[in-house]
Amino acid sequence: MYQKHVGEVFPQNPFKQLELAIEAVFKSWNSDKAVSYRRIEGIRGLNGTAVNVQSMVYGNMGDDSGTGVAFTRNNATGENAFYGEFLVNAQGEDVVAGIRTPRHVDEMPKWNKDVYGQLLKIKGRLEKHYKDMQDIEFTIERGKLYMLQTRTGKRSGIASVRIACDMLREKLIDEKTAMLRIPAGDLTQLLLPSFDPASKKKATALTRGIPASPGAATGKLAFTAHEAVERARAGEKVLLVRSETSPEDVEGMHSAVGILTSTGGRTSHAAVVACGWGKCCVVGAGELNIDEKKGTLKVAGQTLGRDSVVSIDGSTGEVMLGAISSIEPKLSGDFTLVMKLADKYRTLGVRTNADTPEDAQRAREFGAEGIGLTRTEHMFFEGDRIKAMREMILAENRADREKALAKLLPYQRDDFVGIFKAMKGLPVTIRLLDPPLHEFLPQDDATQTEMAQMLKISAEKVRRRVAQLHEMNPMLGHRGCRLAVTYPEILVMQVRAIVEATIECLRSNIKAMPEIMVPLIGTKRELAALRAEIEATIAEVKAEQDYKPRLDIKIGTMIEIPRAALTADEIAEVAEFFSFGTNDLTQMTFGYSRDDINTFLPDYLKRELLDHDPFQSLDQDGVGQLVKMGVDKGRSRKPELKVGICGEHGGDPKSVHFCHRAGLDYVSCSPFRVPIARLAAAQAAIMGEQAAKK
Amino acid sequence: MYQKHVGEVFPQNPFKQLELAIEAVFKSWNSDKAVSYRRIEGIRGLNGTAVNVQSMVYGNMGDDSGTGVAFTRNNATGENAFYGEFLVNAQGEDVVAGIRTPRHVDEMPKWNKDVYGQLLKIKGRLEKHYKDMQDIEFTIERGKLYMLQTRTGKRSGIASVRIACDMLREKLIDEKTAMLRIPAGDLTQLLLPSFDPASKKKATALTRGIPASPGAATGKLAFTAHEAVERARAGEKVLLVRSETSPEDVEGMHSAVGILTSTGGRTSHAAVVACGWGKCCVVGAGELNIDEKKGTLKVAGQTLGRDSVVSIDGSTGEVMLGAISSIEPKLSGDFTLVMKLADKYRTLGVRTNADTPEDAQRAREFGAEGIGLTRTEHMFFEGDRIKAMREMILAENRADREKALAKLLPYQRDDFVGIFKAMKGLPVTIRLLDPPLHEFLPQDDATQTEMAQMLKISAEKVRRRVAQLHEMNPMLGHRGCRLAVTYPEILVMQVRAIVEATIECLRSNIKAMPEIMVPLIGTKRELAALRAEIEATIAEVKAEQDYKPRLDIKIGTMIEIPRAALTADEIAEVAEFFSFGTNDLTQMTFGYSRDDINTFLPDYLKRELLDHDPFQSLDQDGVGQLVKMGVDKGRSRKPELKVGICGEHGGDPKSVHFCHRAGLDYVSCSPFRVPIARLAAAQAAIMGEQAAKK
Repeated sequence: MYQKHVGEVFPQNPFKQLELAIEAVFKSWNSDKAVSYRRIEGIRGLNGTAVNVQSMVYGNMGDDSGTGVAFTRNNATGENAFYGEFLVNAQGEDVVAGIRTPRHVDEMPKWNKDVYGQLLKIKGRLEKHYKDMQDIEFTIERGKLYMLQTRTGKRSGIASVRIACDMLREKLIDEKTAMLRIPAGDLTQLLLPSFDPASKKKATALTRGIPASPGAATGKLAFTAHEAVERARAGEKVLLVRSETSPEDVEGMHSAVGILTSTGGRTSHAAVVACGWGKCCVVGAGELNIDEKKGTLKVAGQTLGRDSVVSIDGSTGEVMLGAISSIEPKLSGDFTLVMKLADKYRTLGVRTNADTPEDAQRAREFGAEGIGLTRTEHMFFEGDRIKAMREMILAENRADREKALAKLLPYQRDDFVGIFKAMKGLPVTIRLLDPPLHEFLPQDDATQTEMAQMLKISAEKVRRRVAQLHEMNPMLGHRGCRLAVTYPEILVMQVRAIVEATIECLRSNIKAMPEIMVPLIGTKRELAALRAEIEATIAEVKAEQDYKPRLDIKIGTMIEIPRAALTADEIAEVAEFFSFGTNDLTQMTFGYSRDDINTFLPDYLKRELLDHDPFQSLDQDGVGQLVKMGVDKGRSRKPELKVGICGEHGGDPKSVHFCHRAGLDYVSCSPFRVPIARLAAAQAAIMGEQAAKK
Repeated sequence: MYQKHVGEVFPQNPFKQLELAIEAVFKSWNSDKAVSYRRIEGIRGLNGTAVNVQSMVYGNMGDDSGTGVAFTRNNATGENAFYGEFLVNAQGEDVVAGIRTPRHVDEMPKWNKDVYGQLLKIKGRLEKHYKDMQDIEFTIERGKLYMLQTRTGKRSGIASVRIACDMLREKLIDEKTAMLRIPAGDLTQLLLPSFDPASKKKATALTRGIPASPGAATGKLAFTAHEAVERARAGEKVLLVRSETSPEDVEGMHSAVGILTSTGGRTSHAAVVACGWGKCCVVGAGELNIDEKKGTLKVAGQTLGRDSVVSIDGSTGEVMLGAISSIEPKLSGDFTLVMKLADKYRTLGVRTNADTPEDAQRAREFGAEGIGLTRTEHMFFEGDRIKAMREMILAENRADREKALAKLLPYQRDDFVGIFKAMKGLPVTIRLLDPPLHEFLPQDDATQTEMAQMLKISAEKVRRRVAQLHEMNPMLGHRGCRLAVTYPEILVMQVRAIVEATIECLRSNIKAMPEIMVPLIGTKRELAALRAEIEATIAEVKAEQDYKPRLDIKIGTMIEIPRAALTADEIAEVAEFFSFGTNDLTQMTFGYSRDDINTFLPDYLKRELLDHDPFQSLDQDGVGQLVKMGVDKGRSRKPELKVGICGEHGGDPKSVHFCHRAGLDYVSCSPFRVPIARLAAAQAAIMGEQAAKK
């Protein structure tokens, strides 16, 4: 574009033209837009750009001249129809600059039928040659068509699916090529509602956060989880706005149509929970000034309240004032074809992270081959359960703890029965209690007093226990299997619930395939000791229930502590499976708290000290070494060891490729990312095969 | 002992005797005392014990019979004098049980000169044969001497030094054997004051904590750092009692004669700081109920106040009521000999961790060959400095931060000049600012208000900044080199202070050898970027000061993040040295917060899930793998890379052995542990040599 311009300014001096051309290219290369484009697309480490000098053609030589840009197929829908714009008596940059309104290429025959015919023919030849949709630029100088440029065209996720499937049917490409043509991450666009672009254009932008869980949500502001529950029950659509969320907020988060937080990153509590549900969520919108007590939200010079309507776009992170209409997704036949082909080519299994029968059901529909992670802690927050949980935490001896746990047992058992039913015989990996106990206690005075009244104990006692459980670094504290070491009765109750649920299902001819997963293991001895307790409990329940047949309950561990990966050979001796918890593994390998990373991550990305947020896409050089080591060491001692991954990375295409190469058996991700993982796994297999041939 | 007893009960039935003997041995093996002894000594993994059956001799056959136990040399002082006790007409267990008061062996000639002569002869033969001090048991049956048992005798640290040196001089053993005879950790006993055993016996035990820093301290209770400073200034001897300490308490800790905390482990703030100073400290005494506001300490049913006198034993963790007299150490000529031999045999360098000229001076006297870690953060707490530091933290832009930092610069420079002078040309590794900024701000309302008044800003602003800096997991948060990435001006000020101090020293003919160490590096790019800024600042200061000669300032990094060890090959490309920060490396490799580990570590040790506190002795299987990997990968890319360790493990004998085997160039530890590290390094070298010969 610059080159053409230069030609006009100094038509008589080709050297000056060349000099200016080079200067212009550098200007373009270093423009803010180009720099930020490269940053967003993760294009790094380039030395510069090449410059081509060639003779100029002019689209502005009169009404028989013109210029245009076009896609050989529709880049938004994928429809096989020539799609573009042109301007008569104009240069290319006029089209791009948007000064004049260009005309649709469909109107070209009216202006010059001959040129249009040539263009259609060239479009066909280009597609046949490149075997892909092309983005072309052309100029007509005094009635003669010149092609300026052709390149593979960018397209929406929807278009990429349609074009790949169409070209496959047209026999232009083969199945493997079709698979590689669809950016796996873009499949989200096919699965979740999105804002109507026209309606979105009219909205007032307030700020932008981190897109944590895609989708589109519009609602009135609710400032506490309790408020969200109440107002949702009354039929309102509410958007939960918090500085950050905690497990106590889970019910409110579930009631809200979307979640918006001012702190936290992509793997903060809000992001992880919302993403698991496929609920729209934007986190870390640092410009939000939330006053929970007053019920106000200050942003962009405005003060919003409980009646303000706000819309959030979970795919872009945009926060906008007012209602925006959204479009529901339709799963096309092409989507089914893509999934069928993905399953044909992939070798990596795909499971899901699901904590409820509903999630499990949905994930099955998306093609999950089992559950790779059922978190049991979310189950303790609802209704009466949290009361029993708190009784347990406040109990002063094992007997009292066991009494409180006995109340939780039937709930847990029913949860598991529900999930086993939904999964219809597919394996279900259940992780034992992971978070520190203080997450189950209220942190503010008022709720502590309320809780004391409910449990009929002194508020002082509640406060004392909260203070006692306070930790400097809860992430590195008393949680995971460490809880089971100090309070074996919690493990016993959970295992009991799993085994009772399994026997109950098997007796009603429902095939239940539980796998018990111990979190946060760092040493072989830890797992050996807990494994013994798990096995003893299984035997005990079998005896009580008078259940004779062999129960096939696998016992395995998360590998999420660096030390576990380093000593995976020893740990494998007492584990039937490993599941890499790459969220925690990333936290500890980098020394980054995912709750606090936002204070420095933006500077790291800006200064290019990191290529990307390591919680979003697995750090293959560092954390990946530990994963590889864990797999290799584990299998060196136990070749049949089953190995998966259940961190958020399981749904990230690049990370799925890594998992394929590292030889994992499966990835597990949130239900809505299952199709993405299936496609990414197929792509990894195809690319691996192609690389091996070279 | 049991065997003899059995013989008496069934003299006619040898089978019954055998049966009872075996039963008795098992009883003894499984007694609480034996079990806890094995736990304390770290004896694990045994399958059982062997049983020897032999004919019985009797010491209770009349006044010509008797029994006794003795050491061939004094086991407390090491003096070469026969030392033991005997009882006439008694069995061995009577001596052990303490029912009758035995007589000193010196009195034996009066009873039976002949037997005494035989004993002396045998003692000499045994020592010549075993070439070590023996612990013997004997019985005289009707005038005839029987030797029941001989084994190498346990001895105090003081005795082990004296005996090794004496035996060397007696040519009974060679230098290497003498080196191996002294438990390196026991050298502490020679360096620090200890309680007079007689006086200690009379004291009332209150509770027991974790022995964090050896020594003996007696003082009146002070409940805040401020109070400790004031009362110490007024001439009182105070013991600082806190639930835990923070960097704000440093001045108070320094003023106190000893430090006692109710939470925290061996690597808590209190423990690390106290140990660095060689100040007596007991931490994690969980039974203490401290009310700082009231100024009371409840423990063991007593309520103590500001006037109560308490004594703490930093070698045992004992907390006792009342004053106990203590004994000052005397460094004997034998100690000097041991250190001379250690330096002859060791190949590993020994440096010290020191933050002040006084510490540096003391460490030099103990034989440190340089400083491996100077923490710069402690320097920011004294007097006016903390005010400037807080101004910096509260500043809203770089210019204001630089203005506040300019006030700190002269203090920092003078600190470094002082340390360079004390170290007289030995290398001084200076670590750039490491802790998160919120550690420098007061956390309670009252002090925040006070601070606001001092800085002439609103209390609200202070509170807002404190809230903004709050982190969920500060250990994994915005600290170390991450501060330098977001606030480069802090790094610039510190480097400027180092370079200015260096030039000032060199111009006054004081050889200054600073090494700049960047903390918490996780990626090569981080270090490359910061290195560029450090080098630019060095060049700038040189130009300003018009200093022409080459300045030899090495730039290196801590390896304390697992990812740094995993990618040490890349990082080595931009580092001249590595120093393993094994405290943090242990935290992240295990996922254990050293501040919170006390909630589960006791159960882990009791259930034998861990052999020892990994913050006390390096976990060689897990963390050690990363250290080894870091050394090997680092040197693979840069063979001349200098590698050390500066975590608390640098002064732990077992860890020193590991560092020797891993090929490190030096260990760095607190001044009082320097002699221990020197001896341990020699032992590691000798043992390595002996193992290689086999």
